[in-house]
Amino acid sequence: MRISSYLSGQWQDNGDLAAKVYCALDGSEMGEVAACSADMGQAMEYARSEGGSALRKLSYAERGQLLRSIAKTLEANKEHYADLSYRNNGATEMDTFLDVEGGIGTVKYYASLAKGLGERHWLTDGAAEQVTKDENFRAVHLMTPLRGVAVHINAFNFPGWGMLEKVAVALLSGVPMLIKPATSTLPVAYAMVKDIVDAEILPPGAISLVAGGGRDILDHITGQDAVAFTGSAETAAALASHPRMISENVRFNAEADSINSSILGPDLDAESNGFKSFIHEVSREMTIKAGQKCTAIRRIFVPRSQLEAAQSALIAKLAKAKAGDPKREGVTLGPLVSAAQKTAAIEGSTRLAGECELVFEGDSGSIDGEAGGYYFTPKLMLCANPAEASLVHETEVFGPVATLLPYDDDAQLFDLVRRGGGSLVSSVFSNDDGFAISAVTELASSHGRLLIVDDSIARSHSGHGNVMPMCNHGGPGRAGGGQELGGLRGLAFYHVRTAVQTNAARASTLLGEEL
Amino acid sequence: MRISSYLSGQWQDNGDLAAKVYCALDGSEMGEVAACSADMGQAMEYARSEGGSALRKLSYAERGQLLRSIAKTLEANKEHYADLSYRNNGATEMDTFLDVEGGIGTVKYYASLAKGLGERHWLTDGAAEQVTKDENFRAVHLMTPLRGVAVHINAFNFPGWGMLEKVAVALLSGVPMLIKPATSTLPVAYAMVKDIVDAEILPPGAISLVAGGGRDILDHITGQDAVAFTGSAETAAALASHPRMISENVRFNAEADSINSSILGPDLDAESNGFKSFIHEVSREMTIKAGQKCTAIRRIFVPRSQLEAAQSALIAKLAKAKAGDPKREGVTLGPLVSAAQKTAAIEGSTRLAGECELVFEGDSGSIDGEAGGYYFTPKLMLCANPAEASLVHETEVFGPVATLLPYDDDAQLFDLVRRGGGSLVSSVFSNDDGFAISAVTELASSHGRLLIVDDSIARSHSGHGNVMPMCNHGGPGRAGGGQELGGLRGLAFYHVRTAVQTNAARASTLLGEEL
Repeated sequence: MRISSYLSGQWQDNGDLAAKVYCALDGSEMGEVAACSADMGQAMEYARSEGGSALRKLSYAERGQLLRSIAKTLEANKEHYADLSYRNNGATEMDTFLDVEGGIGTVKYYASLAKGLGERHWLTDGAAEQVTKDENFRAVHLMTPLRGVAVHINAFNFPGWGMLEKVAVALLSGVPMLIKPATSTLPVAYAMVKDIVDAEILPPGAISLVAGGGRDILDHITGQDAVAFTGSAETAAALASHPRMISENVRFNAEADSINSSILGPDLDAESNGFKSFIHEVSREMTIKAGQKCTAIRRIFVPRSQLEAAQSALIAKLAKAKAGDPKREGVTLGPLVSAAQKTAAIEGSTRLAGECELVFEGDSGSIDGEAGGYYFTPKLMLCANPAEASLVHETEVFGPVATLLPYDDDAQLFDLVRRGGGSLVSSVFSNDDGFAISAVTELASSHGRLLIVDDSIARSHSGHGNVMPMCNHGGPGRAGGGQELGGLRGLAFYHVRTAVQTNAARASTLLGEEL
Repeated sequence: MRISSYLSGQWQDNGDLAAKVYCALDGSEMGEVAACSADMGQAMEYARSEGGSALRKLSYAERGQLLRSIAKTLEANKEHYADLSYRNNGATEMDTFLDVEGGIGTVKYYASLAKGLGERHWLTDGAAEQVTKDENFRAVHLMTPLRGVAVHINAFNFPGWGMLEKVAVALLSGVPMLIKPATSTLPVAYAMVKDIVDAEILPPGAISLVAGGGRDILDHITGQDAVAFTGSAETAAALASHPRMISENVRFNAEADSINSSILGPDLDAESNGFKSFIHEVSREMTIKAGQKCTAIRRIFVPRSQLEAAQSALIAKLAKAKAGDPKREGVTLGPLVSAAQKTAAIEGSTRLAGECELVFEGDSGSIDGEAGGYYFTPKLMLCANPAEASLVHETEVFGPVATLLPYDDDAQLFDLVRRGGGSLVSSVFSNDDGFAISAVTELASSHGRLLIVDDSIARSHSGHGNVMPMCNHGGPGRAGGGQELGGLRGLAFYHVRTAVQTNAARASTLLGEEL
């Protein structure tokens, strides 16, 4: 497999090697990434001028058709992506489902929203309003697409979904995309883009791929572009502080590390159904995708009276998780995606263990896989005095690692949760309406999403870590300060809001867009 | 007059001198700014913990009552502000009206919006949506107030309105404010805050004032705070790139320099009423507040065939503008606000003159004012070949200075306007619906506001430069990338959007907030 960039409507391969990609199952080489000599500034200008003008000529409904064609093409090739995901990411069937089917589902969801927007070329924001004493002088607010390029810098953990959730929104908005996937998990992203390009679905310039390299993208960024990033806080900071990002006031959306939490309500004891739902969800979240999800639970809050019961129940569940090659019988937990991630997870766990007690560790001798795979067994920590702790509220180990934290009362609990400094999601398990509403009042402003589970939705909720396209995804502060998805809400990032003040007839024309 | 800071609920004056303020009319000393030894980190924490929690306990309607009380207090003292504005800013009656009455009007407008929000404690964003197959599992989107402090860093040109338009929105949102006015025009801002504090309208910690100093504010900023800035692109860049702004992902809204434009449509010749409306508006915008408005017209686009007529008409109007002490008979144009602004305006004009031809300059010998005043007479430039020019599209002279640019066809015009790199506002004068709609299609994404004037609203529109509270204020790219006001739209900056996933009954409770 030789992976190359697609810029200015051409596959780019100058014959040199930029990087290699590896198999997570045994560390063997899986493919090469071609170096590229194309001029990035020209490629971005090609995207803006060719791709942008072609996409803006289409209505939202027409762009929805493009999304539908993309979904169809990707569905036809999903076995190929599953194979790449298995080898390159060490993905289980469920892991692949989340990444590949989850991504295609998000594209389909936005295609369905496009129908509702119809044959329009801009969005409207509210009704016409009178501005002065003259009834004939009105203001309307329009949302028109940016005239630049959407730069998507993606994380390694969701090469499919992480790319497609951004593509769906930018493309529906009418903004061409320059996609920079993480190098270590390029295979799935590259295969998807190649299939989209080969199917000739999109106008020239609408999609570009940067594989290996791309370090000078921000040197060419303008105030009509937008940068959407998912990844580490360090990289987010480096991007946000780039001189041109600052001087051009470029829109920047970041989804960064986040110390998410799950909370067992004070009303649930070890015999309750809610307790079982909680234990089930926490252990599932710890092991799915080997814990490599930005939304995964890192802090597990339980009433101090339930600490022993929760610890025993979690250990019993985690002990059943079988690590190894996902194709082998009974394996439920694949390896981490790369050697670098394994090193980072070991370092992070060691750091956490300096403050927390390691109360469970999966048996590495029982791993059912080839030598050289990036395996990392589950670890459960205990932080007995979370009010005095600091590392546990700051350290995200990006693997199957989480920490139990007992709380003494509601006020202390909410304060401890907020010490995460802003998170993507917190899940709250409680049948007590008063506690549930308090959790919303106290925790909403530090979270992009709250999942509040009682017995009535214990089996039907969408999961702590699953990102649903109709719900906001992002979080304030350390979670990056970003907002993605949320149905049509996500389109605002790629549109400029303009107040147009004009006479009543023109105002109606602009709102109805009867041009 | 001795101006001091108000932090942690106390007026702060350590006896030392931090700065002085001057009279724009003769350069004489007008007052002293006291130095302050208060701990800024503590003051911000006091605002968050005392002011924030008190404001969040109030409903939107109750916070609207606070705004109403503020408006009443300010109205009772407006003659005092007018006197300070006259001396410190060299303001004409109209200049003061825009700053003082404009500010009070904006506070009243938000007080009226508060009624519609009622006894709620958060905003809702859309209806409940089904997320999975279970009808009982729903998502709602809530907007809850930030739990930090709103840092308002204001520009010198609107000490009243510029402060109050931010105060109105933050206070209605339930977020305490730390206000840092520009030092040179502190008197009006200080007098207003002092009157609000003396009237004991707000709970402790809800309002703080930083007068002189405050350089370490951002060293204490957190991800639950928000920074709203109006001023130069250089200062905006310095604030946005502060390490804590980056590492904490702090919300930042900037309104920066902007090369706004006004356009005479191709359908309007020198005999038309539209032509007269255009000339009237351009000359008014050039002289009001001596051109010191972030929305003022810097580039005047006319069809090449109308260049001579437009130039003559503008010169005839500008020749009538009489510069001097605004209290003297016939004076329509006051001085600039400070020696530094006069120096900057001279430098900017000289820079522009390197590319453009100076076709009119007001007679400085006819200025009717005291020696030592910061007077600067109007200047009209001509850029005969705007497609080859660059400085004219980048240089904002913050005074009564603008440049005429002839255009040859619509496509060239729109391209030239966009070379401003993103602006707060463009005004378009035309009776041709096709041209008007083209202007929206081509220019919306590079502007926060478009004013499209035809004969039917020539006398009733709200003006090129006036910021109306129901309309978005801000602009992409070089305009700072910010969004303010726009009615309830402006509240989003001080609220966190959270998707709450829960059972249908709880979802209804959260939407209706029947707690």
